[in-house]
Amino acid sequence: MPSDDDPPSVEPATWFGPARTDGSLLVAPIHGVGEVREGDDLAELLARHAGAGGLLDGDVLVVTQKIVSKAEGRIVPFDAADPGAKQRIVEAESVRIVRRRGDLIIAETKHGFICANAGIDLSNVAAGTAALLPEDPDRSARRIREGLLHRHGIAVGVVVSDTFGRTWRRGVTDVAIGIAGVAGVVDLRGTPDATGRVLEATEVCVADEIAAAAELVMGKDKGVPAAVVRGVDPRWLRPASVKREIVRPPGEDLFR
Amino acid sequence: MPSDDDPPSVEPATWFGPARTDGSLLVAPIHGVGEVREGDDLAELLARHAGAGGLLDGDVLVVTQKIVSKAEGRIVPFDAADPGAKQRIVEAESVRIVRRRGDLIIAETKHGFICANAGIDLSNVAAGTAALLPEDPDRSARRIREGLLHRHGIAVGVVVSDTFGRTWRRGVTDVAIGIAGVAGVVDLRGTPDATGRVLEATEVCVADEIAAAAELVMGKDKGVPAAVVRGVDPRWLRPASVKREIVRPPGEDLFR
Repeated sequence: MPSDDDPPSVEPATWFGPARTDGSLLVAPIHGVGEVREGDDLAELLARHAGAGGLLDGDVLVVTQKIVSKAEGRIVPFDAADPGAKQRIVEAESVRIVRRRGDLIIAETKHGFICANAGIDLSNVAAGTAALLPEDPDRSARRIREGLLHRHGIAVGVVVSDTFGRTWRRGVTDVAIGIAGVAGVVDLRGTPDATGRVLEATEVCVADEIAAAAELVMGKDKGVPAAVVRGVDPRWLRPASVKREIVRPPGEDLFR
Repeated sequence: MPSDDDPPSVEPATWFGPARTDGSLLVAPIHGVGEVREGDDLAELLARHAGAGGLLDGDVLVVTQKIVSKAEGRIVPFDAADPGAKQRIVEAESVRIVRRRGDLIIAETKHGFICANAGIDLSNVAAGTAALLPEDPDRSARRIREGLLHRHGIAVGVVVSDTFGRTWRRGVTDVAIGIAGVAGVVDLRGTPDATGRVLEATEVCVADEIAAAAELVMGKDKGVPAAVVRGVDPRWLRPASVKREIVRPPGEDLFR
């Protein structure tokens, strides 16, 4: 009979081999992680569930905000029956309310993110609680990366992802709220395009694109909290920060 | 000696087998397409370069706006030395200028997209020309889908992608401007989350996430104009439209 110390049965994300050389990308969900609790070591937990070969040098590991917040104890009581509860918790997590319409609050968080409800999440957490964003999601990503590097000898990029709406488009997509070891924005300015002409301005936010790709395999209703992206351009694997690279400073934006 | 009728030598995107059953996703660039000209049949061109097995039922084919605009003859003269040329061409393609700062014009296009320069593209087109957006990108996607279905018997989803900036975040990402046979927004409202609680509101824009995933393998400087995404949730393969599902009507948005 299995004891509580046995690792749970795992369906490992090990089906694929080394990165292909044709520029292809492989995106695999990490199954079987189960419920995450405060104090859990995510690097250990995800390495175990990815299985042997499920995480290799040069991979990017995408981890949803929800399990990062749970592991870091960023869970607070939330009474859904109290009509003012949501507003109070959102205001406490915001530096500014950007727009409000009915129940919808678009707020700027302490991190500089502009998103619905200051990123506070009421789904996939225990009843009577809500999950706040990590205090410093770049640091959260760095900790997971360093755990894998120092204890397993695997050098991966890490993206902490969350689900944000967009100003002009319906539907939410996953974006990067914290990164480590994988670029935020890749600057292709000055790179000749395929016709040899120098590109005007093409700064691609590859971290957000990686988060979006991972969301496609994680889904919202499947309980899969992490994914492995294999085959990203090795030039993107470098020290990085969402705060420095992706958050648009107020002076640059046109709509605040 | 090869004649002009021989297909060009192709590095086919055929390395991967059928869709995996573990929820993984495969994203492969279609190489060797070369220069696209007005009147080219994109369904034929991409089927040929994907190679045997490179496009299968249930795949999603992502095609960049640039080659769609070229095939549809949406190329206009553009004199980069004329300081007023860009403004005139942007205004002609817009229904409204949303913001302007220096050289940057954020415009609402006839399609309802809000993006820099009304989506007009000056890179990867011949000198002295610019590429306008397709007249009706959903129709463009439909034509490619129907070409593959009727002449090759392959039922794929099609996403026409383009590169847009974001209001609050630095860097551009690829999004869907036209779709056929693959969902725009997937509504998970009313679906129980992993804890069994009913999700509040989770409408995921999977078409934009698919476009973003494809951009990671296409890159801006590699001359790769299309990619195959294999393994998307089969429930997403249905009639769809960017115009109806993703473009946010003015009455819904908070920032126009």
